[in-house]
Order: sequence, then C-alpha cells, then structure tokens
Amino acid sequence: MPRSTPSGARRADAQHSVEKILDAAIDCLSRNHDASVVQIAQAAGVGRVTLYGHFPSREGLVEAALAHLLERGEEVLSGLDLTGEPAQSLRELIGSSWLLIAQSGAMLEAAQKVLPPGRIHELHAGPEQRVRELIVRGQAQGAFRDDLPAAWLASALHHVLKGTAADVRSGAMTAEQAPEFIAQITLAAYAPQPSCSHRP
Amino acid sequence: MPRSTPSGARRADAQHSVEKILDAAIDCLSRNHDASVVQIAQAAGVGRVTLYGHFPSREGLVEAALAHLLERGEEVLSGLDLTGEPAQSLRELIGSSWLLIAQSGAMLEAAQKVLPPGRIHELHAGPEQRVRELIVRGQAQGAFRDDLPAAWLASALHHVLKGTAADVRSGAMTAEQAPEFIAQITLAAYAPQPSCSHRP
Repeated sequence: MPRSTPSGARRADAQHSVEKILDAAIDCLSRNHDASVVQIAQAAGVGRVTLYGHFPSREGLVEAALAHLLERGEEVLSGLDLTGEPAQSLRELIGSSWLLIAQSGAMLEAAQKVLPPGRIHELHAGPEQRVRELIVRGQAQGAFRDDLPAAWLASALHHVLKGTAADVRSGAMTAEQAPEFIAQITLAAYAPQPSCSHRP
Repeated sequence: MPRSTPSGARRADAQHSVEKILDAAIDCLSRNHDASVVQIAQAAGVGRVTLYGHFPSREGLVEAALAHLLERGEEVLSGLDLTGEPAQSLRELIGSSWLLIAQSGAMLEAAQKVLPPGRIHELHAGPEQRVRELIVRGQAQGAFRDDLPAAWLASALHHVLKGTAADVRSGAMTAEQAPEFIAQITLAAYAPQPSCSHRP
C-alpha cells in the first residue's frame, strides 16, 4: 500500500506511479512467480527508490498487485449479466474475463509463497464465488451436469484458464483463439451427460 | 547421472541410493519447482555428500529426475493397449498414468528453469506424442470431436491433469477420485459435438 499521500499534482503523479507498478507486478508475477522487485521496477519504468517508496516490502507489493487484479476482475464480472441462460452466461463470463481469471491464478501462486493462506482466500473468495454460483444455478436448472460437484467443475475451468494463458504466452494459441476454445471445451465438459453408466 | 561405478554390492547400494534420490527429487520438485538439493537429500534420507557424489550439480539432478520420471511413464504407457475404442483407450490411459503425467508436467516447469528448451522437448516428446496420436486416431474414427485441433485438446488434458494433481495435494479431491473425474470431463469435452453453430 502507498506509504505517502502528497497533495494535488504530486498525488496524481504518485497514483499514476502506483498504477504502473501494480500493472507491471501483475504482468511479471503472472509470468514468473519469483519475479524480483528490481525486475518489476524495470518493467514499470520507475526507479527502485520510487517503487520502495510506495511498497516497502516485496510481500506488500505482491499483496497489493493481487488485490488490484482481483478488484479489476470484480469490476468486469459485476458488469456482466449472469442471470440468463447458464451456458450463455458462462460463455460471456469466459469471453470477458478469461485473461483476468488466468492472471489471477498465476498471481495466486506467486502470492502463496509470501502471504498467509487466510489472506489469499479472503482476496480470492469474490470472483471464485461468482463462477461457482453460476455453475450451481446451471446444475439446478438442468443446463449443466450434476453428477460431479460444482467445486470440481469450477476447479477444472480454472486449470484450463490458467494453462491456456500459458499456451498463449508460448505461442501455441493466439489470445483471440483462447476464449472461444475454453468456452467450447468447458461447455462440452459441463453439459448434462446422457448416461452415468459409462464407467468401465 | 551417477559419476562413479563401483562393483558388486557397492554398485547395488549406489543404484539404490540413486533410485531414492531420484524418487525424492521427483516428489520435491513436483511440489516446489525451487526445491533445493539439500531438501531433496533430506527427503531421500541420504547425506548431502552422497547426493553430490551421484549428482554434482542441481541441474544434472533435475535432468536425471525428469528423465527417470518420463522413462517410468513410458514403461506404463507402452504397457497399455491403446489400439481399441478411442474413448476407452483414453480412459485407460488417464487411469493408469494420470499421476505420472501430472508429475511430469510439474517437473517440466522445474526443468524449464535450468535445462535448455531443446533438451526438455527431447525428453518430453515421447509421452506427449502418444497422447496426441490417440486423439488424432479418435478424431479420424469419429470418436472425438474434430472441430478443434488435436494439439489443443491434448494441451487442455495436460492442464487438467496438472491442476487436479495440485487439488489432490491441497485435499480438495482424493487420489482415488481424481482419475475418474479427469476421465469424465475429458471424454465429455472430447465428444463429437452435435452442431458447430453454437457460437454467440
């Protein structure tokens, strides 16, 4: 969290620096959990002294970056109408927020190394809850399979989101192809199954 | 790779140490990419000197552990008959090798930090190829959807395998529930889709 609160133009400058630092931290930490404060300062285009002025510890910076990302995700998610047909709602949710959700997953891993588990759970509970609620509603309405727990289905979506973000970074898929691919396989995986007697 | 090759009983002892070290390295590095040589020696129940005697560098140890894991995976995979009905073959493949494949994914990330990309690709090409070939055959026979590239479908399975292994470690799912869950959502995601006009 910012340590100093100057007034007027200086406050606006400081706010701008903080934004740049947090964006750089999200980008660096999503790619490499162990990104250093120096690497983040370089990516943000600010000096180390400026960065340490706002975030005296790496731990504080990681926590602020995670909170910033989850807040942005919450803004995007809360702007969506997820009350319509569940499959269509899920498709919209994936399309509008796949990258944010994927980055949150990567950021969470970075955060797990420095923050206490309770704090991480607290920060992450909002967006996760929203996805889970949509799945539960879809199951209740018969739009999604209910032979598997909603928590597991939500978890599988997270794994695919996170892994696909890595595939986009490695060039195996483009950022334009990713959300449609994720939606297609997720909706197929979530679809009510004709029979449960498929076990060997 | 072992540096010394003593004879007789000492050779058997050395081989046993190497096995213990490699198993410990796989376990530690799958959980934590940055596991140190000291942590691995502790987990293996051997002294640091013994470990360094077999693996003078952490890099060499990581490479040997990855090769050992992939070799074990190759043994399991080559023992399977994957020439039958594609969905059933995929189910068997997941059931018999999900943990090995998941560990390989985690190990690969550890390896990516220390080994050159070409060497990793070389070590990993075998098992990956087998999964991909099964998907391609399933697509050709109409058992799996062909509206998405086989490489992407294989990749999504890898993400779910890796993520589910983490869920098992965190206690969200048991090791007994995991392979059946993975098979159920993967087979649903891979199933031929009734219509491609599902886009928004």
